[in-house]
Amino acid sequence: MRRISVLGATGSIGASTLDLIRRDRDQWRIVALTAQSRVEELAALAREFRPEIAVIGDETRLGALREALAGLPIAVAGGGAALIEAAARPAALTIAGIVGCAGLAPTMAAIEQGQTVALANKEALVSAGEVMTAAVARHGATLLPVDSEHNAIFQCLAGNRPADVRWITLTASGGPFRDWPTAALAAATPAEAVRHPNWDMGAKISVDSATMMNKGLELIEAFHLFPVGLDRLRIIVHPQSVVHSMVEFRDGSTLAQLGPSDMRVPIASALAWPARMDTPCAPLDLAAIGELTFRAPDEARFPATRLARQAAEAGGAVPGVLNAANEVAVAAFLAGRIGFTRIATMVEDVLCAYAPPAPGSLDEVMAVDEGARRHADALLEPA
Amino acid sequence: MRRISVLGATGSIGASTLDLIRRDRDQWRIVALTAQSRVEELAALAREFRPEIAVIGDETRLGALREALAGLPIAVAGGGAALIEAAARPAALTIAGIVGCAGLAPTMAAIEQGQTVALANKEALVSAGEVMTAAVARHGATLLPVDSEHNAIFQCLAGNRPADVRWITLTASGGPFRDWPTAALAAATPAEAVRHPNWDMGAKISVDSATMMNKGLELIEAFHLFPVGLDRLRIIVHPQSVVHSMVEFRDGSTLAQLGPSDMRVPIASALAWPARMDTPCAPLDLAAIGELTFRAPDEARFPATRLARQAAEAGGAVPGVLNAANEVAVAAFLAGRIGFTRIATMVEDVLCAYAPPAPGSLDEVMAVDEGARRHADALLEPA
Repeated sequence: MRRISVLGATGSIGASTLDLIRRDRDQWRIVALTAQSRVEELAALAREFRPEIAVIGDETRLGALREALAGLPIAVAGGGAALIEAAARPAALTIAGIVGCAGLAPTMAAIEQGQTVALANKEALVSAGEVMTAAVARHGATLLPVDSEHNAIFQCLAGNRPADVRWITLTASGGPFRDWPTAALAAATPAEAVRHPNWDMGAKISVDSATMMNKGLELIEAFHLFPVGLDRLRIIVHPQSVVHSMVEFRDGSTLAQLGPSDMRVPIASALAWPARMDTPCAPLDLAAIGELTFRAPDEARFPATRLARQAAEAGGAVPGVLNAANEVAVAAFLAGRIGFTRIATMVEDVLCAYAPPAPGSLDEVMAVDEGARRHADALLEPA
Repeated sequence: MRRISVLGATGSIGASTLDLIRRDRDQWRIVALTAQSRVEELAALAREFRPEIAVIGDETRLGALREALAGLPIAVAGGGAALIEAAARPAALTIAGIVGCAGLAPTMAAIEQGQTVALANKEALVSAGEVMTAAVARHGATLLPVDSEHNAIFQCLAGNRPADVRWITLTASGGPFRDWPTAALAAATPAEAVRHPNWDMGAKISVDSATMMNKGLELIEAFHLFPVGLDRLRIIVHPQSVVHSMVEFRDGSTLAQLGPSDMRVPIASALAWPARMDTPCAPLDLAAIGELTFRAPDEARFPATRLARQAAEAGGAVPGVLNAANEVAVAAFLAGRIGFTRIATMVEDVLCAYAPPAPGSLDEVMAVDEGARRHADALLEPA
C-alpha cells in the first residue's frame, strides 16, 4: 500500500484522482484529504476513503466538518496552518490539486518531504517557479506534472537526457477564436470565449484558452519542469487536442503522447509512475477521428504567448506579475468591464508599470501577486 | 570506441549506417564490412573505414577484393562461411543489413555473440522467427529493430512493460492504390505499383507496399519482437507516413514516434541506444505538413494483412511460406506474368497447398523457403 495525500480533494483534479483510487482501493492508504470550503463533499469523501486527517481550509466550517465526522477514527482540522501540517504528513505521493496562490504553501510543505509530488497547481511553477524548483532540488523531491501537456512531455522524455532534446512542442487547441480575424476579436463576448471546443473547463481557464494565455502559462511551467532552455520550447496549434505535446530529439525522432481529453489519463500516469494502471477511458480511435491538423501560432492575433515567453526569459517576479494581472483582466472581461483584446494589453501594461524584485520566499511571491493585482485593478478604475 | 560490424555494407541500410558513422568517426572501431557482390564499393568502404576484415559473399570476386585492398592492414575473405565467421567476430553492435535468406546465417552468428544486433533483415523474424528468437533468448542477445515502424514501437515501449500495452498500432501508408476501387486493382500495372508516395524504395518493396503485404510482414516481425500477443497488434492506414507507429497503454496514454522518411533516424536510434546521436535530418515541421490522416485498413481490397495475421497465428513454417510465395508472386507481377490481385490469391493458394512442419534450424528454414518457391513456381506454369 502506498501512502497518498490529496490536497484539493473536492476540486476537479481531486475528484479524478479519487475516482481512480476508488477503482484500485487496496493499493492506497489515504493520509490527508483537504478542501477549501466544500465541507459536505469533503466529509463524504472522508467517510468513504478514511484518511488519517481531513482538513477544511475555511476555519469557519471546521465545526461542520467535526460534526459530520464525529465518532470516526479520522483527525479533523481547519485553517491555513492545518492545511500545511496535513501536507507535511509523510506520504509517498501527494496530489497538489489546490488551485491558486492558496495552494502554494501546502505544495511547498509536500515538496519539503523529499518524496513525490504530482503537481496540478499552476502558480507553483508560474508565480513561484524559482522558489519552488530550488526547494525541489534542496529536498530531493520528484515533481510529476499532471497537466495533460506537461505529463505528455514527461512521458516522452522518460529515459532521455535533456541535452538530447532538439524541441519540446506544446500543443494548443487555439481556442474558440483560432479562426477569427483580428477585427472580430475586439468584439468577442464572454459567452463566446467560454465555449471551448475540446475540454469542459471553468470560465477563467476557457478565457485563457481563448487568449492562448493558458499556453503561455504552460510554457513558463515547461521552462521550469524541463531544463532544455527557453529557446527549445515552442507552441503549435492543434485544434483536435489529441496530441497532448511532443518532444523532438537530436536524432530526428519525435515522440508524442496522444489520448482522450480526460484528466484521468495524466493523473493515472502520475499515480502509477513509473508503471501504468488501468483507467476507464475509451481507447484512442484515430480512424474514427480521421485527421489531426497543425498550424503555427499567430502571435499578432494572440500576443499572450509572446508576453509569457518574455516573462519566462526575464524570470524573477515577472511571471507572477503576468499571472496575477491576467487573472484580474480575465475577471474584468467576464464581468463585461473590458473587451477581449484588452486582456493581453492590460497584462502588458501591468508588466511595464510594475517590476518588483525577484521573490525569495513564498511570502514574497504572495506580495508580488497582491502588488500586481493592485496595479491591474488601478488600470480598471475610471480615469 | 565501440566495436561495430556492418553486414551488408553496400546496401541501403549499410550506406545509411556508414554515413552516420562517418559523422562521428572517433566513436567507432569497425570490425567487419561485408557485401554480397559489389566488390568495388566494398573495397572503397574498406579503404575509408579500415575494418579488421572485409568479406565478399560471392567468392568469385575475392581476387578483385584482395587486389583492391593489397598492402592495407585489412584481412580479406570470401564466400558464405567467411560471412558467418566475420559476423562472429566480437562486436558490441552488429548491423544485420543483408537482405533475403542469405542474411540468416550471418545474423544468427551475430546473435550467438550475445551482444546487440540491429536487425534490418526481414527474413530473420518472418521466416526464421521462432528459431531466431529462441537463439536471442538462449544467448542473451539484444535485438534493436531498425525498420522504421518497429524502431518507433521500440522507442514508445522503452521503460514500459509488455503487460501494460493495450495496443501496438503499425502505421501503413496504404500504398499507391489505397484509394483505388476493387475493380481497378485487377488492372494495376507494375509501373503504377512502384510509384510509392512517401519512400524511395526498390520495386519489390514498393509492390509489397501496394498490396500491403509489407505491413503484413511487419505484423509478423512485431509479433516476434514485442511479446504482447497477436490480438494486441493492429494496423492503421496513415497516408502521410509521418507517424511511424504507436503504442497505447492500459491507462489510455498513447505514445507515438514521428519523423522524416529517412532510414538514418531509426539507424541512429539503434547506433546510440539508449542514448541519442545527431543526424543531419531536418526537424519535423508539422505546421508545414498541416494534416495527418488515419483510416481503418480495408482487408477486402488488400487481403495480404489478413493472410499475414493468419500466418503469424499458425506459426511454424507458415510465415516463411507466406514470405517466399509472396516473393515469387511479386516477381511474376513485375514480369507481367500475373495481375496485381493475383499476388495475394497466389500466396493464399501456396499456403493451402504447402504445409511443411515447423523448421527447427536455419537449414530447415531455407528448405521451407525453397519448397514454397517451388510450389509458387508450379502455379505459374502454363497448365
